[in-house]
Amino acid sequence: MGAFDSWRSALDPERVLSARVVHWQNAEETLREESLTVEEPCEIRLGGRSLAMIMRTPGHDHELALGFLLSEGLIQDADDVQAVKDVADDEGVPLVNVVEVTLREPLRQEVMATAFQRNFAVSASCGLCGKDTIADVMCNAQPLSSDDLRISASCLYALPARLRAAQAVFTHTGGLHAAGLFTPQGELALLREDIGRHNAVDKLLGSGLLRRALPYSHMLLLLSGRTSFEIVQKAFRARIPCIAAISAPSSLAAELANQSGITLVGFLRDRTMNVYTHPERIVSEC
Amino acid sequence: MGAFDSWRSALDPERVLSARVVHWQNAEETLREESLTVEEPCEIRLGGRSLAMIMRTPGHDHELALGFLLSEGLIQDADDVQAVKDVADDEGVPLVNVVEVTLREPLRQEVMATAFQRNFAVSASCGLCGKDTIADVMCNAQPLSSDDLRISASCLYALPARLRAAQAVFTHTGGLHAAGLFTPQGELALLREDIGRHNAVDKLLGSGLLRRALPYSHMLLLLSGRTSFEIVQKAFRARIPCIAAISAPSSLAAELANQSGITLVGFLRDRTMNVYTHPERIVSEC
Repeated sequence: MGAFDSWRSALDPERVLSARVVHWQNAEETLREESLTVEEPCEIRLGGRSLAMIMRTPGHDHELALGFLLSEGLIQDADDVQAVKDVADDEGVPLVNVVEVTLREPLRQEVMATAFQRNFAVSASCGLCGKDTIADVMCNAQPLSSDDLRISASCLYALPARLRAAQAVFTHTGGLHAAGLFTPQGELALLREDIGRHNAVDKLLGSGLLRRALPYSHMLLLLSGRTSFEIVQKAFRARIPCIAAISAPSSLAAELANQSGITLVGFLRDRTMNVYTHPERIVSEC
Repeated sequence: MGAFDSWRSALDPERVLSARVVHWQNAEETLREESLTVEEPCEIRLGGRSLAMIMRTPGHDHELALGFLLSEGLIQDADDVQAVKDVADDEGVPLVNVVEVTLREPLRQEVMATAFQRNFAVSASCGLCGKDTIADVMCNAQPLSSDDLRISASCLYALPARLRAAQAVFTHTGGLHAAGLFTPQGELALLREDIGRHNAVDKLLGSGLLRRALPYSHMLLLLSGRTSFEIVQKAFRARIPCIAAISAPSSLAAELANQSGITLVGFLRDRTMNVYTHPERIVSEC
């Protein structure tokens, strides 16, 4: 019954594909139209050279490219970037899914000399452990200070429903991760969705860089899924003081959050949550 | 209330960390012990050089290393591998989280000359699109043929509960992805869990390589989460004819499954499912 057939969704052709599927319920099969989240490769070029190929959901690709460079520690702020643009061939025809970033001097020369090496620093003496990884992230940045920011528990409880309400695509496909930036009063400032959790956060960071809105020192980051080490690393680069997630954090995510001064919340559901690190920022009322 | 404190779990010290957390319910906060999935870096070395650093849950690291090399297309089968082992320093003290793979000649020379380049092939004329990516994966491998394998819907419906029942860690931490290999009759043959979805599948592949059980031409792959392009790519390298997942596939996952001859099932829950590609393998009864 039925070969694979798909077409771009009329509602959101860049991010949603419609497909004919065989739907089974018990022993009954029917043909049905379903939506799929679009996943496509995106090539990030630096100075004309290919730096990375990222599988992502199209949209906000300039943000993705800049957020990726920021997360990788290759750039620090908007002043490091001379230009970010789509690429065209010699006849001016745009290349699909390619973003070119040009850095300013003298950073450009420095980055071009090192960014394309696949190797990374390894502690030669004892192998590679979580402490080394955390030390790598923190070697050029101060931990977030114990600031005045206080967030009420009831404010946090309200965030997941607001994130879901703002998610345009999730209800269609069930296939997207969401990352939202909220004010400490619980207002949604920015939402990005992507098939990759990391990409959704990189897009938030890249948006801040493009708008010169970094650091996000007075913002909360809400994630629709889990919190891994790399997510905390990205938040730390943007100086976000509080990360909340619907699901669990990893051990190394909690270790890095603790050492970098970030409040890490997990299992935020049904007016309950776990605060893993820096609980001093969470209060009953504020 | 409470600074971060953590210690290795007595039950599963390699994979579970216990932590003291502040648990909130409505306006009440209490101190509580919770479990975290361990995430640690693992360095994969090839011929003494650092090839990749993967964030993963410890355990089955030799499988992870070999599965990763197989997924990347650097090796094809067990005969390509001379040795996989832990690494020790000059005095015989084991290095933490480092796995060394040695390849056989003449493959070794060929791989050492290319594997450490970060660049990848790009279509110069029009950019980079999903079709190129699929063509890359399929350029050296035949699609799976329309084989005799038939799987009953009722068999598939039973798999998620069996996967969950076999998951040792999930109930503790809520933080692990699971990947299971099942026979077409629905018996669990192998289960791997990891904080990374890709790693869980790479471990299944590496296990097959170590046991000389590849290709997995008569196995089903069940995933606890979503199906991305790279997951289908890994399954294709192991010649797995059917992938089923609890959640959604991406557009490119479905495209690759279609072209490579894989039956792709999504939203497998509560005796319903969507069959996106090659539905001919799914029958009411068998």
